Amino acid sequence: MPEIIGHNYIGGARSAAGDIRLQSHDASTGEALPYSFVQATVEEVDAAAQAAATAYPIFRNLPASRRAEFLEAIAAQLDALDNDFVALVTRETALPAGRIQGERGRTSGQMRLFAQVLRRGDFYGARINRALPERQPLPRVDLRQYRIGVGPVAVFGASNFPLAFSTAGGDTAAALAAGCPVVFKAHSGHMATAERVADAIIRAAEQTGMPKGVFNMIYGAGVGEALVKHPAIQAVGFTGSLKGGRALCDMAAARKQPIPVFAEMSSINPVVVLPEALQWRGEKIASELVASVVQGCGQFCTNPGLVIGISSPRFSAFTALLSTLMNEQPAQTMLNAGTFRSYSNGVQALMSHPGIRHLAGKAQQGNQAQPHLFKADVNLLLNGDPLLQEEVFGPTTLVVEVADKVELQRALQSLHGQLTATLIAEAGDLRTHGELLPLLEQKVGRVLFNGYPTGVEVCDAMVHGGPYPATSDARGTSVGSLAIDRFLRPVCYQNCPDALLPEALQDANPLGINRLVDGHSHREPL
Amino acid sequence: MPEIIGHNYIGGARSAAGDIRLQSHDASTGEALPYSFVQATVEEVDAAAQAAATAYPIFRNLPASRRAEFLEAIAAQLDALDNDFVALVTRETALPAGRIQGERGRTSGQMRLFAQVLRRGDFYGARINRALPERQPLPRVDLRQYRIGVGPVAVFGASNFPLAFSTAGGDTAAALAAGCPVVFKAHSGHMATAERVADAIIRAAEQTGMPKGVFNMIYGAGVGEALVKHPAIQAVGFTGSLKGGRALCDMAAARKQPIPVFAEMSSINPVVVLPEALQWRGEKIASELVASVVQGCGQFCTNPGLVIGISSPRFSAFTALLSTLMNEQPAQTMLNAGTFRSYSNGVQALMSHPGIRHLAGKAQQGNQAQPHLFKADVNLLLNGDPLLQEEVFGPTTLVVEVADKVELQRALQSLHGQLTATLIAEAGDLRTHGELLPLLEQKVGRVLFNGYPTGVEVCDAMVHGGPYPATSDARGTSVGSLAIDRFLRPVCYQNCPDALLPEALQDANPLGINRLVDGHSHREPL
Repeated sequence: MPEIIGHNYIGGARSAAGDIRLQSHDASTGEALPYSFVQATVEEVDAAAQAAATAYPIFRNLPASRRAEFLEAIAAQLDALDNDFVALVTRETALPAGRIQGERGRTSGQMRLFAQVLRRGDFYGARINRALPERQPLPRVDLRQYRIGVGPVAVFGASNFPLAFSTAGGDTAAALAAGCPVVFKAHSGHMATAERVADAIIRAAEQTGMPKGVFNMIYGAGVGEALVKHPAIQAVGFTGSLKGGRALCDMAAARKQPIPVFAEMSSINPVVVLPEALQWRGEKIASELVASVVQGCGQFCTNPGLVIGISSPRFSAFTALLSTLMNEQPAQTMLNAGTFRSYSNGVQALMSHPGIRHLAGKAQQGNQAQPHLFKADVNLLLNGDPLLQEEVFGPTTLVVEVADKVELQRALQSLHGQLTATLIAEAGDLRTHGELLPLLEQKVGRVLFNGYPTGVEVCDAMVHGGPYPATSDARGTSVGSLAIDRFLRPVCYQNCPDALLPEALQDANPLGINRLVDGHSHREPL
Repeated sequence: MPEIIGHNYIGGARSAAGDIRLQSHDASTGEALPYSFVQATVEEVDAAAQAAATAYPIFRNLPASRRAEFLEAIAAQLDALDNDFVALVTRETALPAGRIQGERGRTSGQMRLFAQVLRRGDFYGARINRALPERQPLPRVDLRQYRIGVGPVAVFGASNFPLAFSTAGGDTAAALAAGCPVVFKAHSGHMATAERVADAIIRAAEQTGMPKGVFNMIYGAGVGEALVKHPAIQAVGFTGSLKGGRALCDMAAARKQPIPVFAEMSSINPVVVLPEALQWRGEKIASELVASVVQGCGQFCTNPGLVIGISSPRFSAFTALLSTLMNEQPAQTMLNAGTFRSYSNGVQALMSHPGIRHLAGKAQQGNQAQPHLFKADVNLLLNGDPLLQEEVFGPTTLVVEVADKVELQRALQSLHGQLTATLIAEAGDLRTHGELLPLLEQKVGRVLFNGYPTGVEVCDAMVHGGPYPATSDARGTSVGSLAIDRFLRPVCYQNCPDALLPEALQDANPLGINRLVDGHSHREPL
């Protein structure tokens, strides 16, 4: 295994011009690990963005099949990361080895999914309107459209998925698939992990003959600002806090040339438990729900942070059972000291709120996160109390009891945008509460039936997105193959000689892809 | 024909609560027309946005075929607008009757194109991944994705297309097709026209049983700010100046919930004339190019504002011929006094620039726009002189001569984002200058071969968009059927009972649409 040297990755080489060194830490003990990382200087940030810009015209013009080979080579390199690697990630994040092994497979699977997308060719969005020279009153010219990558993309990974939402995560995979070189800002919570993964990407890039600068990585606190403001950067992918995401959006919007930011930020993922479901399987729901809340120490964007039910003796019993079960859950170590501090502050804010009651959970002590259960008066939701809209990242959830069907609708209506909403419901519930589905659809990116929002399948149909503040742009997803759309833009050719057209648009359809030709979708040559 | 009363259109009724009255003018004489319009109050702007928000859940949930009927009814109503209407538009805009008749057909045709899109169903972007209960290590849930309208859309029309880019123009058509109610800010340059068109839309809405508030229109200066900042508005469509568009973008980005703005703004549409083309058909190119520059008094977003050629005796002769032809072009009346003032200022700025030479065109006098031809030193382009990047809206263009192939590439590389770029080239030119196409593709939304950028076909394959400052978001187009994508966002259903799914995602595929099912695109039921 190569040494971890902590230098920035710029244009296929390593660079350490700065004199600020950052340390990686053991997440469980807090002790410094024997790896240090050199914060990128302003000049290095510039060089990384320039390297990506230089790679862009070459990389975007490679046949999609070449980019697919690159993604598959990354996948193979990720799969080959061994148990020493898993142990390293575990030390930096306190996530268990089994989870990291699973995430490694998810991350390589994600790369392979985008390789499939590239081979399938629907990402081109090929559209052709043939010339109509005889049309009256004016002839129609030949017009052909496909989509190209927008340019270099800056990616900011998340702390809670050190592989799947980080260095070689979904945003990186989607950007590379789109033909956009990446400048990745290594997450300060797992810099050694980031270096191992960056090495894997670079090996794959060299194996498959990708241009230098196709993938760059910089270390450091505060280097993100210079990156987002760099004129070569054309889009940003981010997963993290509302505050951090919004700051990037504001910077990007204030640029001389504003650029889009796809930030996945804050979601409390309401779970609505309806009466018949409660009647038939209340106990099962309570234990499943608690398991979802504390899974992975609650460190998921889709962690269920709000449980809503209609007032009844049964719902009271359900709440009591949730309390009992929550009290039984052990404390867990969080990803890092900062995450733990945020969690403690979030719990404290809920504790101190006069309209919120603490139902279960031991007093916070030491450096592990205790799970907690709270109950809030529905009026807090109806009156827009900000605390009920804010994600507390960790193993905690909050119960809200509504008087009836009408108040349930009002409560859901008062929610901000979410990644997910869940209906726990029997068939009879769904008949009685048919109005909920269109309402939730307006609020979220994904509506679940009788499941739990943690666990985000990587596939064509997934939407890991949703209205603000769940994300900064509800038209995107950061998980699943549709994520590529965020980094593509259409270009049209008018009366272009066939030989000069990109293959996706040539008469013979050499790629054999599906195209919209004069209003009909098919794979035939013209 | 109904009287023009100048009241705002709010939730299916008319409203005139304010006391500021605005006047419409005859564009040719400047005299006030006998129509006045009541500026919307802040409360009326709020009411219009609220009316759209109230209509949204009803409108977006109508079957797409019902929305298609609405668009077709609008088309029929537009087609029925008679010669009195044409005369009215002509008075307000100084555009000739023939042009207005053509534009009327284009505008109704646009509505019908979106109706086709709704019936074809590809706008749904339907994607299905069926459950894999036996998958190891974890089963896969059933996931289905389609797209819904983002919510109420604010639309700001353009002065230069009083029909096709205005009240019932492309942005309105795309938003309504997507299921998004519209609040339209009537353009101050053609308010009587706007009222007639709004009446046509309202008649169509009533005929087809659309919810009140599906289309709203407000009059006034400065009311746009309150509209864009209104929390109910979820996206903005705009066509106009860079200054105006950027101001809206900044407002939208600074909202508590930022929203996307699709602003089509500033483009100088470079035309590159290559040596062999010049050799074989220089005279023809010169006369075609001049016709394109002065067409419609140059009041097109795609007006060719920059002509680039490689230095040679032939290019000098071509430039001389352009001068001769430009000198022969008559002055024309512009859309309104403001447009004429801007044009005069733009021409004056070019005249006063020490690095720019005036080649042709009579001194500006009276209230008609004289066509002009300028020539600039290529260094102005290479050194980023802002004057060469700015659109002068009107019948003027600027020639730049480059030393050779390499300087040509550098000159094009120095350009900002554009709606279009044009290559006037013979086959031999294209062989010699193969590097130009990928370069131009990075700069523009549409690359033309041996045509002129004025004239934007409304079809599936058109891209009327491009990198900033041509538009605020290169991922969109404001002309053609892809324009609907700007106002759609994906939603995913997890394990949803079939009967509750939207028709687009039901097993039986009752709409018969194309869907991506487990990675394969087809129309079969499941």
